[in-house]
Amino acid sequence: MPKTEHWHWYVEEFAPSEQHHHAVDEVYYSGRSPFQQIAVLRSPVFGKMLVIDGDTQSAQADERIYHEALAHPALAGARERRRVLILGGGEGATLREVLRCPDVEQCTMVDIDALVVDLSKQFLPEWSAGAFDDPRARVVVGDALEYMGSTTERYGVIISDLTEPLEDSPSHPLFNERVFELIKSRLVDGGIYVLQASTGAAINAALHCKMARTLRRHYSHVASFVTHVPAFDTEWAFLACSDGADLAQLEAATIDRYCARLKGESFFYDGVTHRRLFALPLFLRRMLAAGGDTF
Amino acid sequence: MPKTEHWHWYVEEFAPSEQHHHAVDEVYYSGRSPFQQIAVLRSPVFGKMLVIDGDTQSAQADERIYHEALAHPALAGARERRRVLILGGGEGATLREVLRCPDVEQCTMVDIDALVVDLSKQFLPEWSAGAFDDPRARVVVGDALEYMGSTTERYGVIISDLTEPLEDSPSHPLFNERVFELIKSRLVDGGIYVLQASTGAAINAALHCKMARTLRRHYSHVASFVTHVPAFDTEWAFLACSDGADLAQLEAATIDRYCARLKGESFFYDGVTHRRLFALPLFLRRMLAAGGDTF
Amino acid sequence: MPKTEHWHWYVEEFAPSEQHHHAVDEVYYSGRSPFQQIAVLRSPVFGKMLVIDGDTQSAQADERIYHEALAHPALAGARERRRVLILGGGEGATLREVLRCPDVEQCTMVDIDALVVDLSKQFLPEWSAGAFDDPRARVVVGDALEYMGSTTERYGVIISDLTEPLEDSPSHPLFNERVFELIKSRLVDGGIYVLQASTGAAINAALHCKMARTLRRHYSHVASFVTHVPAFDTEWAFLACSDGADLAQLEAATIDRYCARLKGESFFYDGVTHRRLFALPLFLRRMLAAGGDTF
Amino acid sequence: MPKTEHWHWYVEEFAPSEQHHHAVDEVYYSGRSPFQQIAVLRSPVFGKMLVIDGDTQSAQADERIYHEALAHPALAGARERRRVLILGGGEGATLREVLRCPDVEQCTMVDIDALVVDLSKQFLPEWSAGAFDDPRARVVVGDALEYMGSTTERYGVIISDLTEPLEDSPSHPLFNERVFELIKSRLVDGGIYVLQASTGAAINAALHCKMARTLRRHYSHVASFVTHVPAFDTEWAFLACSDGADLAQLEAATIDRYCARLKGESFFYDGVTHRRLFALPLFLRRMLAAGGDTF
Repeated sequence: MPKTEHWHWYVEEFAPSEQHHHAVDEVYYSGRSPFQQIAVLRSPVFGKMLVIDGDTQSAQADERIYHEALAHPALAGARERRRVLILGGGEGATLREVLRCPDVEQCTMVDIDALVVDLSKQFLPEWSAGAFDDPRARVVVGDALEYMGSTTERYGVIISDLTEPLEDSPSHPLFNERVFELIKSRLVDGGIYVLQASTGAAINAALHCKMARTLRRHYSHVASFVTHVPAFDTEWAFLACSDGADLAQLEAATIDRYCARLKGESFFYDGVTHRRLFALPLFLRRMLAAGGDTF
Repeated sequence: MPKTEHWHWYVEEFAPSEQHHHAVDEVYYSGRSPFQQIAVLRSPVFGKMLVIDGDTQSAQADERIYHEALAHPALAGARERRRVLILGGGEGATLREVLRCPDVEQCTMVDIDALVVDLSKQFLPEWSAGAFDDPRARVVVGDALEYMGSTTERYGVIISDLTEPLEDSPSHPLFNERVFELIKSRLVDGGIYVLQASTGAAINAALHCKMARTLRRHYSHVASFVTHVPAFDTEWAFLACSDGADLAQLEAATIDRYCARLKGESFFYDGVTHRRLFALPLFLRRMLAAGGDTF
Repeated sequence: MPKTEHWHWYVEEFAPSEQHHHAVDEVYYSGRSPFQQIAVLRSPVFGKMLVIDGDTQSAQADERIYHEALAHPALAGARERRRVLILGGGEGATLREVLRCPDVEQCTMVDIDALVVDLSKQFLPEWSAGAFDDPRARVVVGDALEYMGSTTERYGVIISDLTEPLEDSPSHPLFNERVFELIKSRLVDGGIYVLQASTGAAINAALHCKMARTLRRHYSHVASFVTHVPAFDTEWAFLACSDGADLAQLEAATIDRYCARLKGESFFYDGVTHRRLFALPLFLRRMLAAGGDTF
Repeated sequence: MPKTEHWHWYVEEFAPSEQHHHAVDEVYYSGRSPFQQIAVLRSPVFGKMLVIDGDTQSAQADERIYHEALAHPALAGARERRRVLILGGGEGATLREVLRCPDVEQCTMVDIDALVVDLSKQFLPEWSAGAFDDPRARVVVGDALEYMGSTTERYGVIISDLTEPLEDSPSHPLFNERVFELIKSRLVDGGIYVLQASTGAAINAALHCKMARTLRRHYSHVASFVTHVPAFDTEWAFLACSDGADLAQLEAATIDRYCARLKGESFFYDGVTHRRLFALPLFLRRMLAAGGDTF
């Protein structure tokens, strides 16, 4: 045909004036759960993609970057990692990474949207890679706050894969004192709370810095770390919060010992990558050091 | 959300420099038959849409314009309309319009792509509106040329809903002398062959004029008619070919008598609309009168 | 280069879910007057284009369709056409068409935006084609209402090329009783007021019908006419209002006599085209006949 | 207006299936030099942008990331930096960064396209920030290869800001043995040749790795370094080649001493950022270690 090959596109809008257009080869699912609009697509460059409310959640070509960054620095630096709690993370890939660590005896994942979990099992089995069937995995479909309020368990590491608190996002009300205290109450002493924490590029790091400023009121160590995730089209930032461990100061030897014991091969993370993650560019260190408002 | 509501788009390319983007609310089907790539979508403005190889075939909001224009002028002007043959037309809407005429005793539709027929029955039932179940309908899945070569039946009206003969389209080889003779051999004397015949706007009427010039070698009356079809984003042209009837000269009274007997209500076509269809703009009459190459 | 040839695009949005994308070969001007945002571009298919506030105003490839339709049916049907008034029309193409008629002794054009007039003279000289230098032309830069309020002249034909009264357009307040009376007061008895009157396709004719219903309170003949304008991506509608003449009933012979005396050659308009313009499709006649709200 | 604010877009295509759309607020220039198509635009998020042949060259919001990364690691690690040569770099920003170092006595910049230099001076003065007027600057308009063939000067640092050798880019023929020998012949012994070296993300690092493999045949130290550049929409990679210095092993104290003496304030680069630049993610170290073809 004398026509473009691509006529079906997924458009991610970052700002009213900035869009990324991905051609779509196949639509596995497109619909709505009680909580959000969900699509499972396939693009020529990124492979299968999970899209929620118009935002790319993860993509086959690079989800390991995001999920290894979310799980391993915290686990590597944790004194106690027998019990791990994941807030959100319905695709099962954070669970997969956590369970690669043989010290983990139990990993509980709480996601509110059963449809995301089901679609991920059906269309994105590479994400969980069997993790849902691991006897150490406990999957709870429900509200993360309610779950934490109802349990008395304490965790060495709590990993939050919830969406960031944008002005009118459902996560906005979750970013407050009460919630922070609830989360901290479920950590063992000196445990680590790690969360995905919005974008971290020079042009869009303001929300991340506000999140960091807020959490510094609650933890003695709040370390930002940042990596490029191609499918997110930008640098992605994370926060590691603890009264016991400063992940930015973790020694290479400690990380290498941790990594050597992981089941399977890593794609992204090791001691050198850890150094990259935590060695922030000058402008971002300046922004984080400057004052500003908090949640 | 602070984001655009629309993040799933169908892009129709008219030229490398001209595209129409339709937001997609729902994807009913997206896949491939042995013959072509097919999608059934829903857009906020056009409703359900059938898209083949990146081209809009018809849309819920205005398919009646196209299908009434394709069927009724020819039927209104035909001396004999007991037997009608439709080439292509898998959605069933041309069949639907033909069967609205009580004089039609048998209407045969030959479409090569069973998947188009099946998807239309499942997702676009408004298009056929029961026509597939009419006892006068005969649906043949197969090649239109082979069918005409194998039958000895003759038809008062033959309606071609095949794609136009673009350079590298599968329809290109079908636009030649042998095929024209085959079609004519299946018409009753003075019967009418009507076909969709590409775009007819000032900027894109060249292919239509070439089709018209070609068919004038075969029929004493070759009348162009043109209407805007919103979902096609342009004026659409048709050709009515006959040795018996000149549809451009059809009298209003004849059309009104024809229309009065149609089952159900028309959306687009009647005597006044007929006048619009055949009263071509000056530039198009000039282009049609000028010489040029043929197929 | 292994890249698309086109990386500069003009996007016209018809609805939040419908966009037309035109590649841009050259930007002659892009800026802002005190009244509006203005761009003069060139596209491969449409040639030079004038864009105001994101809407295509006219394009080199087909502006004659729009401007001949706006000027000639009214002039052909007018008993008196020595004095003509154009409201808006800064490109000079409506003026050009009016001055093709040798009976016109004076044509006054009132446009509020001197920048549009200047840019048109500089970059779009084909639009005015010398009309600004015609001794019969009087160009007034100013507000059309104020002009009409301040003059005692009366005109055989008043042509409004103002934008349509969309909810939050600057033209919205202009579409009211006081203005209609003002316009009528400037017409000779039985004179003709013709205006561009929004889109007229099956999917977007509601505003046109509301305009028609409103004007019927003021004139005994209010005739809609409609033509496809490729650069507008739809059928465009006009209204011809008069207490003297019903343009829909104009005889072909009258039109042909009028056309024969025009200076230069027409592209679009003649007696047959007039028939097309005023023979509306069935659905539009139904919509116009139905009741509804007015301005 | 009930319309999108943005109707003028710049579309950067990364692959036929991946596009980034930037709304354009203003077009300062859009045209063609004897060598390339050039546009100077302004976007709401990135500010002023220089676009050549459809590729973003640099943007106001983040050009300091790219230009500091290109200039400073090499200068910080160079034993000799009195004479510096820049290949390309017409915007003047690489020149600006080089001249911030007080040890530089002369910096020669050779760019083939006088129009890029002139447009940058006129519309992008923030890029050069006076560097073109620095008495240490020598700007040569001409072919970089010819220049190097005609001079007998030798440089402590040669910085290449030329486009990468894509299949059908004009830079492709420049990436061969003869050129590498020519460049090396113009370096002082142990001097450093640093070049921008294509994208370095997980999904698009193949060309970078091929460039690295090729240059390893010519230098004993070839170090990749990578940073996210928002306007390039990806991680950008560089290569530092030398027989004298391995920039990946540069000590923090050396860098800090170097940075302390720079004129003005850096945005991106310092000792910590250096660590980030050269601590590559695991997948990229694996790709660089694997064999493969060369130029």
